[in-house]
Amino acid sequence: MITVHEVPTLRELIREARAQNRTIGFVPTMGAIHEGHLALVRRARAECGFTAVSIFVNPLQFGPGEDYQRYPRRLPEDSRLLEESGVDLLYTPDAAQFYPPDFATSVEVAGVSDGGEGAIRPGHFRGVATVVGKLFLQVSPDVAYFGRKDLQQVAVLRQMVRDLDFPIRLVAVETVREPDGLAMSSRNAYLAPLERQQAAALSRALFAARDRAAQGERDPEKLERQTRSELEEAGLAVDYVEVVDGATMHRPARVQPGSSIAAAVRVGKTRLIDNVLLLEE
Amino acid sequence: MITVHEVPTLRELIREARAQNRTIGFVPTMGAIHEGHLALVRRARAECGFTAVSIFVNPLQFGPGEDYQRYPRRLPEDSRLLEESGVDLLYTPDAAQFYPPDFATSVEVAGVSDGGEGAIRPGHFRGVATVVGKLFLQVSPDVAYFGRKDLQQVAVLRQMVRDLDFPIRLVAVETVREPDGLAMSSRNAYLAPLERQQAAALSRALFAARDRAAQGERDPEKLERQTRSELEEAGLAVDYVEVVDGATMHRPARVQPGSSIAAAVRVGKTRLIDNVLLLEE
Repeated sequence: MITVHEVPTLRELIREARAQNRTIGFVPTMGAIHEGHLALVRRARAECGFTAVSIFVNPLQFGPGEDYQRYPRRLPEDSRLLEESGVDLLYTPDAAQFYPPDFATSVEVAGVSDGGEGAIRPGHFRGVATVVGKLFLQVSPDVAYFGRKDLQQVAVLRQMVRDLDFPIRLVAVETVREPDGLAMSSRNAYLAPLERQQAAALSRALFAARDRAAQGERDPEKLERQTRSELEEAGLAVDYVEVVDGATMHRPARVQPGSSIAAAVRVGKTRLIDNVLLLEE
Repeated sequence: MITVHEVPTLRELIREARAQNRTIGFVPTMGAIHEGHLALVRRARAECGFTAVSIFVNPLQFGPGEDYQRYPRRLPEDSRLLEESGVDLLYTPDAAQFYPPDFATSVEVAGVSDGGEGAIRPGHFRGVATVVGKLFLQVSPDVAYFGRKDLQQVAVLRQMVRDLDFPIRLVAVETVREPDGLAMSSRNAYLAPLERQQAAALSRALFAARDRAAQGERDPEKLERQTRSELEEAGLAVDYVEVVDGATMHRPARVQPGSSIAAAVRVGKTRLIDNVLLLEE
């Protein structure tokens, strides 16, 4: 695995790989690599001849008072995990170079960014679209891999890629979970032992909603209400519970193929999100 | 010259040209081709092995009540002029395909977009950055050519390219003028004969400011004031007259190398812009 920090070197290595007719797979991350990231890497390696991973904690997607400063940073361990997973190239841009003081450009995706996370974290998806757009232009991959755990992020980026005609295929990879169902997330590291136990109620409630949908429940409001009360009974503070269409992030009138149930909760000071597909497409 | 409307065909032709080691030069236009556009084409042909031109009247960069509907469209004549000038590829996207009904993404460049044209035409530069960003991703040129007449547009696009790391070099080409100094513009076609005579006062006043700068005048306010009164005396309605730095579009405290004087005026119903470099960089 070659580690690069500078765009010219990055581009040279990508050019070389492409000259060897290797398809370029790209996994953008904020580091604190876990099994969820490694599932993306495995998928990229299975589909592409050359796998690039970036690690960059993107200040633009954190709001004031959010966890930008304390977001886990552990490059040496991340680097070891990625190398062991067969990554070809690790790109770790320097924040001051990535966003120089006069940086002034933003990419915004209306509509799909508005609800859910976007409503609670204003500017978050503008930060995501801007950093991913820039990373796409720097790395110029053929395929990019994202975790389905960040459902709305995937929807925002799909819309960006389609609208601006990035010559890149987006692949959403199924969420990887702990044995008790908790979705893998770098933020799980914040949880104290008791909070960690409580946190399992998030996926448990979402899977219970899926079971009710499988048994025929098609009313989004009922599913949301039941899920919310289960989360609250487990002592979780609910930011939102929403049945959404995974492509548009609109709430369907009735649960239909492609509908997911998504939720954000707080456990102590830690904010967790998760979603589960209610009906297969 | 091959004319294409669809992105897959466009990309295939660009890929073939690149496989032949030809540098891709790109001239995005809104059509109504005049000598100003042809100067961009000549420059592209001198520097690149393959010259692509797009013609697309971009609805996003027109405000309500502006001239989107009546903007001149004359594809057959444009096509002939471009072919005679040695253009290799003409890309004429279909508006409904370019902006499908659910199109929702925008690219915005803060700061440099705010004053001048941006202040008078809200959303104009967001429309410009969005269309050019998308065209850049569709065409993927090595070099792109823009007319210096649209000084602020060049500044906005330079900042976008730098911020998002488009792997594209931007070249600004000197304004081409009619014998009486009027900058070439597709909108000159709107001018009635008497208005056409009046319009010459715009460049005349800007060149007079340059002469005063050459004679030592360094006070932006004085230059602006004198230029404004000359424009008004000639019967032109002044939207703005501003001394600006061509890179930042900020007004310098004193005229310095790289300072330009830019103005927008209305002659009857027609709005014209122009600018002149006050001191060589």
